[in-house]
Amino acid sequence: MGTGLSAHREGPPGPAAVAALLDAARGGSRRAVGRLLTLAEGPERGVLLDAIDAGPVRVVGVTGPPGAGKSTTIAALVGAYRERGLRVAVLAVDPSSPYSGGAILGDRIRMAQHVSDPDVLIRSLATRGHLGGLAAAVPAALRVLAALDFDVVLLESVGVGQSEVEIAAVADPTVVVLNPGAGDAVQAAKAGLLEVADLLVVNKADREGAAQTVRDLHVETGLAVLTLVAIRGEGVPELVEAIEAHHRADDPDRRAARARVQVLSLAQTLLRSHPDLDGLVAEVGDGRSDVYGAARRLLALPAE
Amino acid sequence: MGTGLSAHREGPPGPAAVAALLDAARGGSRRAVGRLLTLAEGPERGVLLDAIDAGPVRVVGVTGPPGAGKSTTIAALVGAYRERGLRVAVLAVDPSSPYSGGAILGDRIRMAQHVSDPDVLIRSLATRGHLGGLAAAVPAALRVLAALDFDVVLLESVGVGQSEVEIAAVADPTVVVLNPGAGDAVQAAKAGLLEVADLLVVNKADREGAAQTVRDLHVETGLAVLTLVAIRGEGVPELVEAIEAHHRADDPDRRAARARVQVLSLAQTLLRSHPDLDGLVAEVGDGRSDVYGAARRLLALPAE
Repeated sequence: MGTGLSAHREGPPGPAAVAALLDAARGGSRRAVGRLLTLAEGPERGVLLDAIDAGPVRVVGVTGPPGAGKSTTIAALVGAYRERGLRVAVLAVDPSSPYSGGAILGDRIRMAQHVSDPDVLIRSLATRGHLGGLAAAVPAALRVLAALDFDVVLLESVGVGQSEVEIAAVADPTVVVLNPGAGDAVQAAKAGLLEVADLLVVNKADREGAAQTVRDLHVETGLAVLTLVAIRGEGVPELVEAIEAHHRADDPDRRAARARVQVLSLAQTLLRSHPDLDGLVAEVGDGRSDVYGAARRLLALPAE
Repeated sequence: MGTGLSAHREGPPGPAAVAALLDAARGGSRRAVGRLLTLAEGPERGVLLDAIDAGPVRVVGVTGPPGAGKSTTIAALVGAYRERGLRVAVLAVDPSSPYSGGAILGDRIRMAQHVSDPDVLIRSLATRGHLGGLAAAVPAALRVLAALDFDVVLLESVGVGQSEVEIAAVADPTVVVLNPGAGDAVQAAKAGLLEVADLLVVNKADREGAAQTVRDLHVETGLAVLTLVAIRGEGVPELVEAIEAHHRADDPDRRAARARVQVLSLAQTLLRSHPDLDGLVAEVGDGRSDVYGAARRLLALPAE
């Protein structure tokens, strides 16, 4: 697998085409938004990035094991931000997400109320395993949403893999949603979610054992743990306030720490498809090179 | 933090000094062995590697949560390999390991019997957080042990961090030792141990709940799960046979997969102390660079 630009062309756009798409998207074309986000995922990303001049956008990460109630929590947050008059985008990076191309499954009742709102965008981000996956696609997608004047992006991820660490690096804060009981806590620990969490939320907190889960998670992480019954809106104002408080406390050190994880995540992703990797691995595998020399050559660093 | 060679010099050895240390070590000097392994950890590693011409050595990884019985298991394995006439080195990369400089704590009765055996070496590997840590130190230490004609290295790691993934890449197989009950399984899952395990062992298998833990781990991982009462030697022959069977089944694909993880692990470690990283992170943090350009510049790749 190379890093070239040859694969997956479907009408390669130039800067003028990207600008036209941006205009159409700002004018309300969901199709244009979709096309721009598709560009963010793919080989024409460079053209897209060159054409967009946009500052950073606020990103709130929402992750957690499947079934924890991420979508319900996000729907509640969308409602809360809309009440404040903010334009909200929901970007789901879970390949099994119910969102796709702006449509959502009919059983997500609480999200359905937002679908026809012109100031709410709901999109999934395909990753397709090419050109660096999430670490590469998410920042470009966020740049598109910033250019389209969204005030806040709710970034949903499925919460069962390494990608959450990369996603956490663009979000401020990262909210981890869990259910009462040991199962979700174990899954979250396994996926490294407890380490990336800025805020921990126990959803379905009216269930038995919720108080114990809150105590256990607090002991495990040292974080304050919020409770939520997202489907009934209970605890949502407190969650919104906790998100705002965390965001207000942002500072250059935290920004630099996130930038460091982003740069390293993307560099590590690029390394896995580095054009020289296979050859160097073959040399190490059959003893022609040692791992030190191979790693330094991969990074174009001089020999020790 | 740079990657230079200036720090931590204590009599920088040239190739001749390394050769003299190798001669002394082969002649039975534990002090020379210790000095060579210290070189593997530090800034003179390049001199060491240049001076050593040795093929690969067999490595069996033993990891697991604290208290699972790794040291007892390793002592039992040492005994089994000694019965076969093999020279055995134990390399402990757990900073809280009982081994240090060839000495062990008095309460490790079963290991104590091996300390005076000239064909058994027991050493801890300091990592000190410099020059790439474990990913960088372990292959060099293994090269030293290969040059000293050890037949097998038992590589013990503490099993609570990312380092185990790197260690697993040099071991064939990686044995994960757990105790009955949910606690160890959760810790192992959290540390990613279940993903790197080639063989799972439930130690202290005479305890209540062991059979259930064996079933749960099998369901979770799909691996066969062995049982052990290491302190009484029960299950040790079966474990040795499982290790041998896994090793016999090694093939070029598995070797290449391990080489890939080793090269990528070391490259990723080097990236974290890359001389250009801080500058690029600062540019991303204050908006002068985007994360794509920064990551590609870090890798010396051309812009997309």
